[in-house]
Amino acid sequence: MSRSNLDLVNECDRFPYYQVDTDLYAASVSTYYELRVQEHDYALGYVLPSVAEIFRGLPNWEIDDQDRVLTITGVSTTEQRSDVVMRTVLAMKKTGYFKVLEKWRDELYPVYGKNKELLFDVERSASPLLGVVTYGVHCTAYVKREDDELKIWIPRRAKTKQTYGGMLDNAVAGGIASGEGPFESLVRECGEEASLAEDLVRSRAKACGTVTYFYIRDERAGGETGLLQPECQYIYDIELPEDVVPKPGDDEVEEFYLWTVGEVQEAMAKGEFKPNCALVMLDFFIRHGVLTTENEKDYVEIVSRLHRKLEFPTS
Amino acid sequence: MSRSNLDLVNECDRFPYYQVDTDLYAASVSTYYELRVQEHDYALGYVLPSVAEIFRGLPNWEIDDQDRVLTITGVSTTEQRSDVVMRTVLAMKKTGYFKVLEKWRDELYPVYGKNKELLFDVERSASPLLGVVTYGVHCTAYVKREDDELKIWIPRRAKTKQTYGGMLDNAVAGGIASGEGPFESLVRECGEEASLAEDLVRSRAKACGTVTYFYIRDERAGGETGLLQPECQYIYDIELPEDVVPKPGDDEVEEFYLWTVGEVQEAMAKGEFKPNCALVMLDFFIRHGVLTTENEKDYVEIVSRLHRKLEFPTS
Repeated sequence: MSRSNLDLVNECDRFPYYQVDTDLYAASVSTYYELRVQEHDYALGYVLPSVAEIFRGLPNWEIDDQDRVLTITGVSTTEQRSDVVMRTVLAMKKTGYFKVLEKWRDELYPVYGKNKELLFDVERSASPLLGVVTYGVHCTAYVKREDDELKIWIPRRAKTKQTYGGMLDNAVAGGIASGEGPFESLVRECGEEASLAEDLVRSRAKACGTVTYFYIRDERAGGETGLLQPECQYIYDIELPEDVVPKPGDDEVEEFYLWTVGEVQEAMAKGEFKPNCALVMLDFFIRHGVLTTENEKDYVEIVSRLHRKLEFPTS
Repeated sequence: MSRSNLDLVNECDRFPYYQVDTDLYAASVSTYYELRVQEHDYALGYVLPSVAEIFRGLPNWEIDDQDRVLTITGVSTTEQRSDVVMRTVLAMKKTGYFKVLEKWRDELYPVYGKNKELLFDVERSASPLLGVVTYGVHCTAYVKREDDELKIWIPRRAKTKQTYGGMLDNAVAGGIASGEGPFESLVRECGEEASLAEDLVRSRAKACGTVTYFYIRDERAGGETGLLQPECQYIYDIELPEDVVPKPGDDEVEEFYLWTVGEVQEAMAKGEFKPNCALVMLDFFIRHGVLTTENEKDYVEIVSRLHRKLEFPTS
């Protein structure tokens, strides 16, 4: 069945909104444990009760079942907190309990506090267990021909990729590791994923905002389902000269297509895009005047939903 | 004192966020009355208690002090509801009680329900009394010179204008009356406010999304302060040829300046822009890569705040 653009948003921005359904929101939130660190009395993420249970009794972790809070305690520096988290998730990996930890990435993701200070780092594969905000870069590469027709470079993920295998993607997309800036991350990923030359990217890539949403993981993400995953993607556009052809730089991408807007929209409606990449395409279409309030009945709703104000501190 | 970009956002998007400060949000909301129409059990706007009081006992209006709801009752069609609202605000205008009604506009604004159906129309000057969502178009006119330098056309409002007199504005901005489409409204306003030819606007204006925020009126807006004003602005960019010069088409604009990005940012920091026009400029700077996460520490926060998901149904 054909998906509307709002269907695509709903598939990715799945966490309920307080303003829309107060009861549903309250009921959802009250099932989770807030993740906190000592001396910072606010939520950094939401943890499923089935996950919080596994932290019970572990050193430096405290569970308050009354207020439903899971707190990293007894440590006060970024390094100490990161150590606690690393020791804990390494031990959990050894037990084999959590399936998401089987895809260990050896890459650290940052978790920020209210003053944008780095509170701790967490191994990437463990971040959905803690329900913390993760960051990435997504870049749309396009060509504008002389007759003004817009064409967009769309890669297909390798069928062998464990997550969202065979689905369509944005030209370049990747997570931002702790300590790396978004633009530097973009330059690196453009080289790795699309074989785009560094000077081309530095001179042509344009920052265009962020896309933020609150995802709830399903089977396609791999591992446990229902884990909370609030995400912030830094968005870039890069207009490529007609003679520059992105090429897969690793085995994660099968091939690149150069598609018209109509072809991209058709594939989106068929659900062929990785969910968050469909959102990045919607944002691109809105910024470029492809989608308008005259041709998209859910225009106002979609624009807001692509820029969700997350419940937790961000970078 | 110099304003940060986040200060500018805070000045306009002033209503508290549930996710940020649940207690403040709850305390704020619990002081207001929800505006509803019979058989639609959801809020269309927030009404100050001092305003709701004046509706007490009027025909076709019902006040529930327990649940704090003000409902239009006894009528069931769009026309009937609009009649009730018009009769009521006309009577209130005659009494001279509300200062905002002294600026009667003879222009109707639409109020939509959850299924995007038109529930009723309300005289423009009365909309902040009901706290309903209002709609407008804001367009940024710019010139891109051959050396790629961006210059922006900025009008100064006439000093004699009753609201925000002498402040800086977007090239074209205006409210959307009931029954008018955003793009048609834009074409009309571009002629009236900037003397831009219709065919130029139709061929060059590009829809770029919406900017939504929840304003609380202060002195500069004129009339009662504290009234709630959630707004949705349809955003357009128009790149003008270097030889096209916008000219004030009425006495509402004093003159147009052609400014560099730096000049615009300086005036923003000095608080010279009408508050919601500063937000439109921020959105423009984000979409055009002027503001980035590398040069704006509140980047992620600002992008979300410019696209607030409003508490009420929208068009």
